[in-house]
Amino acid sequence: MVVERDIDDLPKNDANYTALTPLWFLERAAVVHPTRKSVVHGSLHYTWQQTYQRCRRLASALSKRSIGLGTTVSIIAPNIPAIYEAHFGVPMAGAVLNTVNVRLNAPTIAFLLGHSSSVVVMVDQEYFPLAEEALKIWEEQSKGHYKPPLLIVIGDENCDPGALKSALGRGAVEYEKFLESGDPEYAWKPPEDEWQSISLGYTSGTTASPKGVVLHHRGAYLMALSGPLVWGMTEGAVYLWTLPMFHCNGWCFPWSVAALCGTNICLRQVTAKAVYSAIAEYGVTHFCAAPVVLNTIVNAPPDETILPLPHVVHVMTAGAAPPPSVLLAMSQKGFRVTHTYGLSETYGPSTVCAWKPEWDSLPPVTQARLNARQGVRYIGLEGLDVFNPQTMQPVPADGATMGEIMMRGNLVMKGYLKNPKVNEEVFANGWYHTGDLAVKHPDGYMEIKDRSKDIIISGGENISSVEVENTLYQHPAIFEVSVVARPHEKWGETPCAFVTLKPGVDKSDEKRMEEDIINFCRSKLPAYWVPRSVVFGPLPKTATGKIQKHLLRAKAKELGPLNMSKL
Amino acid sequence: MVVERDIDDLPKNDANYTALTPLWFLERAAVVHPTRKSVVHGSLHYTWQQTYQRCRRLASALSKRSIGLGTTVSIIAPNIPAIYEAHFGVPMAGAVLNTVNVRLNAPTIAFLLGHSSSVVVMVDQEYFPLAEEALKIWEEQSKGHYKPPLLIVIGDENCDPGALKSALGRGAVEYEKFLESGDPEYAWKPPEDEWQSISLGYTSGTTASPKGVVLHHRGAYLMALSGPLVWGMTEGAVYLWTLPMFHCNGWCFPWSVAALCGTNICLRQVTAKAVYSAIAEYGVTHFCAAPVVLNTIVNAPPDETILPLPHVVHVMTAGAAPPPSVLLAMSQKGFRVTHTYGLSETYGPSTVCAWKPEWDSLPPVTQARLNARQGVRYIGLEGLDVFNPQTMQPVPADGATMGEIMMRGNLVMKGYLKNPKVNEEVFANGWYHTGDLAVKHPDGYMEIKDRSKDIIISGGENISSVEVENTLYQHPAIFEVSVVARPHEKWGETPCAFVTLKPGVDKSDEKRMEEDIINFCRSKLPAYWVPRSVVFGPLPKTATGKIQKHLLRAKAKELGPLNMSKL
Repeated sequence: MVVERDIDDLPKNDANYTALTPLWFLERAAVVHPTRKSVVHGSLHYTWQQTYQRCRRLASALSKRSIGLGTTVSIIAPNIPAIYEAHFGVPMAGAVLNTVNVRLNAPTIAFLLGHSSSVVVMVDQEYFPLAEEALKIWEEQSKGHYKPPLLIVIGDENCDPGALKSALGRGAVEYEKFLESGDPEYAWKPPEDEWQSISLGYTSGTTASPKGVVLHHRGAYLMALSGPLVWGMTEGAVYLWTLPMFHCNGWCFPWSVAALCGTNICLRQVTAKAVYSAIAEYGVTHFCAAPVVLNTIVNAPPDETILPLPHVVHVMTAGAAPPPSVLLAMSQKGFRVTHTYGLSETYGPSTVCAWKPEWDSLPPVTQARLNARQGVRYIGLEGLDVFNPQTMQPVPADGATMGEIMMRGNLVMKGYLKNPKVNEEVFANGWYHTGDLAVKHPDGYMEIKDRSKDIIISGGENISSVEVENTLYQHPAIFEVSVVARPHEKWGETPCAFVTLKPGVDKSDEKRMEEDIINFCRSKLPAYWVPRSVVFGPLPKTATGKIQKHLLRAKAKELGPLNMSKL
Repeated sequence: MVVERDIDDLPKNDANYTALTPLWFLERAAVVHPTRKSVVHGSLHYTWQQTYQRCRRLASALSKRSIGLGTTVSIIAPNIPAIYEAHFGVPMAGAVLNTVNVRLNAPTIAFLLGHSSSVVVMVDQEYFPLAEEALKIWEEQSKGHYKPPLLIVIGDENCDPGALKSALGRGAVEYEKFLESGDPEYAWKPPEDEWQSISLGYTSGTTASPKGVVLHHRGAYLMALSGPLVWGMTEGAVYLWTLPMFHCNGWCFPWSVAALCGTNICLRQVTAKAVYSAIAEYGVTHFCAAPVVLNTIVNAPPDETILPLPHVVHVMTAGAAPPPSVLLAMSQKGFRVTHTYGLSETYGPSTVCAWKPEWDSLPPVTQARLNARQGVRYIGLEGLDVFNPQTMQPVPADGATMGEIMMRGNLVMKGYLKNPKVNEEVFANGWYHTGDLAVKHPDGYMEIKDRSKDIIISGGENISSVEVENTLYQHPAIFEVSVVARPHEKWGETPCAFVTLKPGVDKSDEKRMEEDIINFCRSKLPAYWVPRSVVFGPLPKTATGKIQKHLLRAKAKELGPLNMSKL
């Protein structure tokens, strides 16, 4: 049979093909809504026209200094306008943006700057001393090969003016001055290839050596559209920056907000009061937050809240499975919580617990339980399943058999920077291995049971630390909890709970409280799942609010193995 | 300077790259909402799980007959479930879907089937005689090279059962039988290359020889997401099929509805009554329609309407500039009209008159005038401007200087099938030339003044036929109008108006009505823009409701040139 192939033989040309890149969203916002507020930071209000000009200035100023394709620009900043602008200005120059977690220590930042070969470091004035310290360490460790990067300090009139002055006295260029050296009409170009890298972000905290996750223009474009579509976020949304932009590019929402010609509300510091105020003052419609932030919001004292909410506020949460109790409290306060799941390696959330109308009539507790699952794939992700990693067979949808969550498709990272060995491992068999363990329910929704390394193995049986935590969250005195393995002479491991109590709870008799908590668990969990020990105090966290279980595991080890007196 | 390129050197692999295709949306809908209604056609209701299985059966049945990559499957059908299924099943087999306008005549359909080398023809039972006639003509014209395509007839229990029986008696395979021969678990694959063609559609009506517009998987994916984003169409939308799916793949909404896990409501025949009934019965939230359909909806007699509407209904319109009077009447009835513009060559609408909140407080007439403009580019289109086609310079944004609308980017077609000469012309200088003439307003929104070939040139001056029409639509007796050039001995051309009067208007004295209309225009237009003659009667239209100006132009020519008695 002669196949007529003309139908496929029409070539690409300049009119019908261009690389996918989220940069075009900014140009469009400036054309469609030039006078609409783009970025608000305290008394500082920019319009889309201004933001577009400022980003082009940044790109132009970088270009003039030969910073472009193949180079990396690092930024150390909280949620201020400059980090928003860097998400456009840096890739407009062809360079890659590396966002640094401001809560890392100097040696770690030194490692990131060196590993990423940063040629520019942009730093918020508050973090200038930290950056200086990191640069010093980098120089010391590079044994004569150190080429000092261009250091740009970002002033903030809401902060101590002395800090900016001191930074300028030490040779840094001021950000606003740097922008002035750029052309506001700079004719930026989209990348030749949409596979070109757009950003770099180091995985934080829970493992020892940070890995640099590299993302590309194509994926950033697709995620920027996919997020709003699964969330129901529409044109003109007012988005509050509670989630740090340095964390996985704020789940690509810097680009989404431009695509929707919305408004970004910056926040240097996240508190319950600041969140409620922003909702009232700016009409915030959407924000993203780790479960720990939700916890703060629902437990805020009445004088820090503004309730009832003046309008529906949509909240996207991810990062760890939020306890059903927190989801329930949020919804009772009028927040509509969309629960998602993902990793830095997948541009942020790439699965969503898609709400079903038939859940509307269920009891709130059941709703919260259903909504606490990690759900189904994003529109932009092509493959998601829970596999037995040995056989690469999907687990049955029985809600019981555990397997590893794996993903594939256009929302999966390019890979880790300079780490071919790990890349080979995580991309084995054509799937990205998340390392998270889950079950698949009969309705096709998956639910995380644990990180591979967080699972507790007691007498050869798996215990999901997440399920023990969910039970503990139902205890009326518990504010926050994390459960890890503690060595046990007979059973190998048993659960150990680290607990922070709610404000106002009587903390005088820890022994009695421990007993009370353990008894509470006995009534709800299989005997071997019940924590054998409870430790009270604040929990160590990463910058994004993730509890650092590896530190707790170390602490539990230090406590020493339990013996048979604790069955 | 040694450039560190590791940052860009991470290769594609099976885990992090796959071709963009809207086919994945269907698989996702079946996983997320297996029991939700996908397609409703009278008493026939399918769920997403069923639709997915039916589409896989179709793909499988085609594959078994070696129909795949490089082959074209044509379908001749109104908005019934089978044409929806063909949008997935045919490309799942790797083949290209050619949707044929059911209102074309047999010789034209014969041309399309031959030109596209169709190996399968799917046809709705009502159109079987038409298809047979077309095949006969094709055979006759192909001088012994005719290879009869596989003929599949689609039954519809809402129609005459005799027609189906007769078709089966003449050698056609029944669609449901054909599906039965396919595997409901067929393991379809996404295309290797997202540039692979997904559909073919012939431009209709207004020009003499149809041109085959070829679209690809990548563009269909991007348009399917872009439409909902500019329209504010969200998860679970209930979409009414007033726009024919055979027209430019229903502007890619077959794929959008799957992406949003919405519900498709089919309509064999569009009437005002059917539209209002569907809104009331199924809770329709969205539909698309050409301005002529809107005209029918606003002028429907009270017993065919259901007003006030039970909820907000979003209407997307495009195809020709809707007269402000129609936009105003729609909004007064409670329809929220989004005005878009595009062509088959751009996957349907690719610009939108994005509504601005500041317009909310303007008088309704001003709102309608602003909303009648063609606006700004879609999120998914990267380039749009109004150029002087000679110099390729953008026209000034003065609302007065006319130029040609040009577009570039990922929502522009692959090209016309087997038409390299025209492809070279329309893609000249790296822009797709639309042939539409427009101005750019100071706010950056463009407004169409005319098709290049519809402009009337009188005494060397341009007259926008669209503006004359918009004026005429304000006349209380006029239902529909189209203005074309009529030869004039002195001026070369002058405007001639073809008019349909509203029901109930006294049509007895055409002479007086003509005078009245001409006087009405005198008070509102420059003297040389005023029509010199008015012709009453129904207007010839294409299947999608576009008025066929080339027929009216021929008619005006037949009327003969005016002389100086009509200054």
